[in-house]
Amino acid sequence: MKLSDRILGMQESPVRKLVPVATKAKKRGIKVYHLNIGQPDIETPKCFMEAIEAYDSKVIKYSFSQGEPVLIDAIIDYYKRDGMHYEEDEVLITNGGSEALTFASIATCNPGDEILIPEPFYTNYNGFTSEVNVNLVPITTKAETGFHLPKKEEIVKLINEKTKAILFSNPGNPTGTILTLEEMEMIKEIAIEHDLFIISDEVYRKMAFDGLISHSMAELEGIEDRLILVDSVSKRFSACGARIGAIMSKNKLLMKNILKLCQARLCVATLEQIGAAALYSMPLDYADHIRDIYQKRRDIVYETLMQIPGVVCEKPQGAFYVVAKLPIEDAEDFCLWLLDSYDHEGETVMLAPAQGFYATEGLGKNEVRIAYVLKEEEMQRAMSILKEALLVYKQKS
Amino acid sequence: MKLSDRILGMQESPVRKLVPVATKAKKRGIKVYHLNIGQPDIETPKCFMEAIEAYDSKVIKYSFSQGEPVLIDAIIDYYKRDGMHYEEDEVLITNGGSEALTFASIATCNPGDEILIPEPFYTNYNGFTSEVNVNLVPITTKAETGFHLPKKEEIVKLINEKTKAILFSNPGNPTGTILTLEEMEMIKEIAIEHDLFIISDEVYRKMAFDGLISHSMAELEGIEDRLILVDSVSKRFSACGARIGAIMSKNKLLMKNILKLCQARLCVATLEQIGAAALYSMPLDYADHIRDIYQKRRDIVYETLMQIPGVVCEKPQGAFYVVAKLPIEDAEDFCLWLLDSYDHEGETVMLAPAQGFYATEGLGKNEVRIAYVLKEEEMQRAMSILKEALLVYKQKS
Repeated sequence: MKLSDRILGMQESPVRKLVPVATKAKKRGIKVYHLNIGQPDIETPKCFMEAIEAYDSKVIKYSFSQGEPVLIDAIIDYYKRDGMHYEEDEVLITNGGSEALTFASIATCNPGDEILIPEPFYTNYNGFTSEVNVNLVPITTKAETGFHLPKKEEIVKLINEKTKAILFSNPGNPTGTILTLEEMEMIKEIAIEHDLFIISDEVYRKMAFDGLISHSMAELEGIEDRLILVDSVSKRFSACGARIGAIMSKNKLLMKNILKLCQARLCVATLEQIGAAALYSMPLDYADHIRDIYQKRRDIVYETLMQIPGVVCEKPQGAFYVVAKLPIEDAEDFCLWLLDSYDHEGETVMLAPAQGFYATEGLGKNEVRIAYVLKEEEMQRAMSILKEALLVYKQKS
Repeated sequence: MKLSDRILGMQESPVRKLVPVATKAKKRGIKVYHLNIGQPDIETPKCFMEAIEAYDSKVIKYSFSQGEPVLIDAIIDYYKRDGMHYEEDEVLITNGGSEALTFASIATCNPGDEILIPEPFYTNYNGFTSEVNVNLVPITTKAETGFHLPKKEEIVKLINEKTKAILFSNPGNPTGTILTLEEMEMIKEIAIEHDLFIISDEVYRKMAFDGLISHSMAELEGIEDRLILVDSVSKRFSACGARIGAIMSKNKLLMKNILKLCQARLCVATLEQIGAAALYSMPLDYADHIRDIYQKRRDIVYETLMQIPGVVCEKPQGAFYVVAKLPIEDAEDFCLWLLDSYDHEGETVMLAPAQGFYATEGLGKNEVRIAYVLKEEEMQRAMSILKEALLVYKQKS
């Protein structure tokens, strides 16, 4: 009675070992600023709960496997207003972007197949793939170059007959990097030349700072058949707990097959779909409001980081994360120390050590991911604690 | 750019090809009684929506990966009141029973491994397993013997070094059969002797008729380490669209590993968990109320079936299904004919051909599954249409 190799081999959440230490700190009366997770503090638009409360919920019935028609229509209309055209059978509703990514892995890969991915990457991509025996092959990117992609030949040499897709989040979690149009064109070229699917996780789309536009891969022509788009209400509408996402593609055979996965798990929670339809029906410029909030927070984080000698990072362009190289040896040790041995006037910060975002052994050891998901005053305070803590930590060692 | 073999090999929903035919019938003005799906018409208890409306939902945050503490506590308390004892780290909340079953497949099997299952079985079990490259090996059971298990030696000879678990729903979907204590003891013996996990899908538990008790596998001693229980609010509380289920086991290593799967998909929808906590907090005897409703419907179905010459089925003991052998050649043809060529005063019925519930080629060809999920008057009417239709169909052929 042995557990499967695939589950035993799965990585535990890299911030997980910090959680009990943070809990202990709180028990000691320390206030912990959580910069370690992408849980925004911004209120979910009221229309979400209003739609749910207005729904006739006498019998909470199964929804359709493909999703509630009202939500699918709202998504199609949202994309249409944004210049992209999807049809009814090109959108399937999923349990968050997470399920969409698992479905994309199952649909494109058999056990042992490979997906290319720029590292550092969102650690849960490990889970979505390893649980279904797909291997992620990292394309290494670096803090020094703002985590932009390496040259085409660097990427192409990672491709073999097992490579089935290239996956990335844009804007990037954990880096906050936005792909340039040139990078997007290069991905398109590689995918066409090597016959790969493109899995574009665009859950942070619209969160682009300094007037930059974060383009959707769906704007590129000639890859309609190979593009799999992943979307979600979690970040764009600050509704992480709704667990509503979508998988979208113009490859109808693919969608017809992914529908079988949808049918197997019957449907996504009905009420949350009703709420999500209201979110997607809001004016497009709601995204600007959210972006402006994060841009101010980004500024606070970046300015403070630049005041610390030895920190390496480019100004993040989108999402609400930054990966920074700190003037220390071991970021995990530093993050633990912040929680179990340090406080500034009874307060400390919790960060995510970046090592867990890399697949290549040894990379990211002196890097952390900072999620700027707190109000400006709190971000200000949290960052000055971090700055102060680094001084103390370095003196100690 | 080929899709994976595993997704191409997945079965489509067996009732799916009937759906467009039913839609056409409705467009012709025909009323269709849906006896083809397990979607109860019973109202979801009001406490579900009341709890959601009372929840502070300013920010719809991620819930915990293991589930909302209030829901886990409510489930533990529910089982305690029912004589079973589970601890906090022995319960994980899932997206319906569906996700629990996928997680159980991943955790117990590597690609190519096998799970034993009595057939006919709930067709979606095919999905939960084939999407993760697990093979179901059927233990054939028959209408003539009320779909009870064959002798131990019949089961044991299906076991080989790839067999990792035995899976069943009890009470049974699609059969309505309840395992006897002797059958449960036999499963226990087999599992111990051949070192298998036991995956007991108990989402229909408490729905047992005629004073029968549907025991939980958790009541048996000596299998604590190998038992994986699956539960859900869908049927017992008539809340299918909530998509709240649970996976429970006293094997802590197993649960620690399944938690990694939970972490990968972050969490289950927050609001629905709040509602589900209210459902599990209701008095245990709410189940009696539900059971009494289904028992009356079962009586109508069974009495009518017994009036039809040539029908073979035992009186179903639980859940809200029955699989009946009809005096016809091809149940799929009959089900199609009911929708596209027959009506009785403008009304017809939709049934599920049972072939899709068997893994063994050729079995169930003249059987249908009837879900008794409509009000008594409607069930009465639907069953007399079926009775009438069988006469007409036989005369025609």
